[in-house]
Formats: sequence, C-alpha cells, structure tokens
Amino acid sequence: MKQPRQQNDSAASSFTGLSAFPLTPLRDDAVDERAFAGLVERLTAAGVDSITALGSTGSYAYLTPAERARVARIAVEHAGATPVFVGVGDLRTSRVLAHVDSVQEAGAAGVLLAPMTYQPLTDDDVYELFRIVTEHTGLPVIVYDNPDTTHFTFTLELYARIAELPGVVSIKIPGVPAAPDAAREHVTAIRGAIPEHVTIGVSGDALAATGLNAGCDAWYSVIGGTLPAPALSITRAAQAGWTQEAVAESRRLAPLWDLFAELGGSLRVIAAIAEYLGLVPPSCLPLPIRGLNRSQRVRVSDVVVELGLA
Amino acid sequence: MKQPRQQNDSAASSFTGLSAFPLTPLRDDAVDERAFAGLVERLTAAGVDSITALGSTGSYAYLTPAERARVARIAVEHAGATPVFVGVGDLRTSRVLAHVDSVQEAGAAGVLLAPMTYQPLTDDDVYELFRIVTEHTGLPVIVYDNPDTTHFTFTLELYARIAELPGVVSIKIPGVPAAPDAAREHVTAIRGAIPEHVTIGVSGDALAATGLNAGCDAWYSVIGGTLPAPALSITRAAQAGWTQEAVAESRRLAPLWDLFAELGGSLRVIAAIAEYLGLVPPSCLPLPIRGLNRSQRVRVSDVVVELGLA
Repeated sequence: MKQPRQQNDSAASSFTGLSAFPLTPLRDDAVDERAFAGLVERLTAAGVDSITALGSTGSYAYLTPAERARVARIAVEHAGATPVFVGVGDLRTSRVLAHVDSVQEAGAAGVLLAPMTYQPLTDDDVYELFRIVTEHTGLPVIVYDNPDTTHFTFTLELYARIAELPGVVSIKIPGVPAAPDAAREHVTAIRGAIPEHVTIGVSGDALAATGLNAGCDAWYSVIGGTLPAPALSITRAAQAGWTQEAVAESRRLAPLWDLFAELGGSLRVIAAIAEYLGLVPPSCLPLPIRGLNRSQRVRVSDVVVELGLA
Repeated sequence: MKQPRQQNDSAASSFTGLSAFPLTPLRDDAVDERAFAGLVERLTAAGVDSITALGSTGSYAYLTPAERARVARIAVEHAGATPVFVGVGDLRTSRVLAHVDSVQEAGAAGVLLAPMTYQPLTDDDVYELFRIVTEHTGLPVIVYDNPDTTHFTFTLELYARIAELPGVVSIKIPGVPAAPDAAREHVTAIRGAIPEHVTIGVSGDALAATGLNAGCDAWYSVIGGTLPAPALSITRAAQAGWTQEAVAESRRLAPLWDLFAELGGSLRVIAAIAEYLGLVPPSCLPLPIRGLNRSQRVRVSDVVVELGLA
C-alpha cells in the first residue's frame, strides 16, 4: 500500500490553522450520507483550513470498516480543495492498517491516529503501533492524544520518540493550562521535544484561543465542524497576533463552553446543536449514546439563540 | 431472535462456582482455533462449573464479528456438558445485538455484557443498553462490571435497576475490599440491592478467596481459564465453608498475584504462562498489545515452576 512520501517545507502548512471535525450523523443506525456530505460542503464553503473526518466527534470508534471507508470517500469527494484528514484509530493494529488503506484509496491528505485502548497499553505498545503505521503508509500521520476517550497518557518523552518517525507531521494535544503563561510554558516544552516540522494542534475548544496564543500551530476543533464561523474568528485573530481579540471571541462563547462542561462533554452538545440547526437528523449519535434529554436541549437552543449561532 | 425464557430456581445454579475465562489465542493475527479448542477441552476435563469465552481475557474487544461468532461456536462444541457463556460487549448497541444473535445460534447458555466506552456513558445510557439487550434475547445476561477496561463505574443504584430486568442472572463485580469484614459488608450491600435470584460473582483473582468467603456465589476467573486446578481448589474450599483453606491456597499463589500487580495486569501474565506451558502459540495477544518482554517472561516462568503450576 505504501506510496512515495513527499516531504517538504510547504507540506507542513496543511497541518496548521483550523481543522474542523464534523459529526458523522446516523439515521436509524446507518450513516446519513447526504447529511454528512452537507456538513463537509458547509465547512469548505466557510473556508476552514482542513477537515478531519472520523475524529472522536465523527464517532469513528463506533463505525464499521465499511462505514468508515464510505465516510472517508464522501468527505474527500465533497471537500473540494480543502485537505481532508481521516481518523484511523482502532483497538487492533491490523484493523488500523485496513482503515489506513481505505483512507489512502479515498484520496485523503493525512490520517489521525489515536491509541484506542481496552486493555491498558504501555508506551512501547503505542510507539510500535505508530511505527507500524508510518512504515505501512506514505500518508502524513497526526498523533491523536485524547486521554478522556483513549485513557492513554502520552509523556513528553513518548511524543519525542513518535515525532521522530518519518511521516509524523502533527500532534493533537488534549489541551493547555488555562493561565496564558502556563499554556505558553506547556507548548514550549512540547515544541522543544519534537522536530521543528511537526506542528502542535490544540484541542479542547474552551481553551483553544489560549492554546493558539501560546504558540499552537493548529486547532483541532469540535465546534469548527458544526459552527465554523466563530471557530474561524478565533483562529484568524490568533494567527494575526491579535491575542486579545481571540480571547474576547472565546469569552463571548463562554455559555457554550459551560454547556460542554456541564452536559458531559462536547459531543452530546454539538450533536444537539447540529440537530437543532437541522444540519443532521434527530438522535444522530450512535447508541448506546442517547444524547441530551429534552430539558438539556432547551438549554442548548437557548445558548444558540443567545450567541447568534443560528 | 428472541426465544422463550425459562426461569426457575435451578437456572441460577449455572451462575455460581468457578467460571473459567480462557484466552482466545492468535497466531499471525488470526484466531488459533485448534489451540482455543484445546483450552476449552482442558477446562471441561478439569471440572470447572462454567466457561466464559470472549471475556476480557478472551480479547473480545479486539476481534471481528466473524471471529467472535466462530469462537462462540468452537467453545460450545468443545465444552461438552459444561455451560458456556460468551462476551457480547461492543461500543455500539447494534453490534452488541448482532453478537448476541451469533452467541444464541452457537448454543451458548448465557451472555456476558460489559458497557464498553469510547465516549463516556451515562447511567441511563447503560441502563438502556441492558434493557435493549434483555428485550432482544431470551438468553441469561451476566452484567460485566470492569471499570479498568470500560472506564464506566456502576453505582449500587444502577446495579439494582439493571438487576430487575428480566433475564439478568448475575453481576460480575470488579473485586472486593482486602479486609474480610469490609469484603463481607461490600457483598452484603450489593446483595441487599438486587433480587435474590441474581448471583454475585467476584473477579480480580488475587482477592477471589476473600470474595467467595464474603458471600460471592461465583468467581469469574482469569487464572481459571489457564490454570483451573488451583482455581478449583480455592473455589471448592470456599464453597465447603473452609474459609481458611481457601485463603491459604490463595496466599500460596501470592507470587502470581504479585506478577499481576507488577507487570501491568493479569492478561499479559496469563498469556505468558499459557505460552510457557505450550497451550497457545507465542505472542498470542492481539497487537498493539505486545505482551511481556524476555526478562519479564523469565520471572513468570520462575513463578510457574516455584508454585508447581507446570
């Protein structure tokens, strides 16, 4: 499957700016392909820097290999010139490689790989997983560090070992400290441990402005996949060095971040928002995730209206 | 798929005593069916009370639906008159139901269901999962509480709600406190919350004797799947009321419990033991789980020899 790897200075630029993570909406336990294509087209029209399909927000862990191959293909077909990255994580290495092959056939520009766990993994297990994947494919690999879902914790040393692997282009870090100085120190420490061409992307939307201001190159964004406009405002301000403007726009969205914190994380809330906006069918998340209840949804729609996100 | 459920007093007796959890050995990333059949026959010959295939020890989370259906069938075919339970956990409810159908077709005597998570689940999500599964099948359902792998924590209240569902016959609890009085208090509290016909099975082998002595009806056992003789010694002693003998046999195995604690859990150690004993092929666990390294394996084989387990 391996194809020649092209690496040059400009290649890294795909792994900066706003990467938007769309939902993969289900209807009656099957992917709603039309709704998904619509989400992708909406992101391209909004001008996001890249689209990451089948991230955690895209429910990759819940979908079959065939569903995932199909979603990768639709994403690439509807993204126009916007680069598409696709999540390839799975519990078993051989299944990860099969996903990588599908994504490569779909024509994606990179893969996002989280070390999913059921049994806890050691650092060496995870290093070998990334080694095997980077040996298998010529596609750029984004290291996906998301301990809330994988329950695996990367050390700075493991970042460094994995970032040295040919093909690794970016690390999606789970977040930054809330205080700007601490955030800058955190990002600087990671920067010092990894090769210069490997970008650092913040996730955890509530602190994305802080992360970008602290030196992160990219924002791997949940809200970017459904509400690209405010995510772009924050990103473009931070990229221009307008740190206060980035923070101000993030502060304006505080009621949204509060919902993420109070209603069990970003996924259920962003799905409820996309459902409220009519972008996806009702109850679009895979069971057993039942999504928000009626009173929680009222809170969500109130915030959407209050913030002018409709 | 649903077939008439037969419930009577004697039905509960299948869910007591020693339930042995065999490995599902892989060779070159495919199930080694002959080795697996050999493990099952060995357990039946040893006289365990039941066999639970595709538990966490049986790597259920890593196998494809086809592999899991095949393993269920082999287990039932080679278990003789010993009841076979099969793990049906998956991240998506529809896949759980598909596994349940395969297991029912294979002729198993029950299913073991863990609420696997990627996104965290709410109590209501998990209750609904069990409700949907018990409505779907007439097979008895064992509730599988294993927070180390699922990262879901059951409350006593949720045990109670789920245990009321028709078809729920047993709860596999993750362990008991080490002190005998605290263990008895813990088991008594669970007992008081659930219907009388629902059995309580301890897991966490190191404290299984404590759990059985504290009133657990069953031991869902990792070592029972590979080393049935010492597991049966502990179980039969506890069942006879010989609490000191049960504890003494468990204490004799302390070097094994120490290995579980020091080498990252029971799975890698029990796999290394089965490999050392020639019961399964080398490197029988699914990648990315790489198993123990050479020096760790020497420690394991030393303990096997020291304890006379070969």
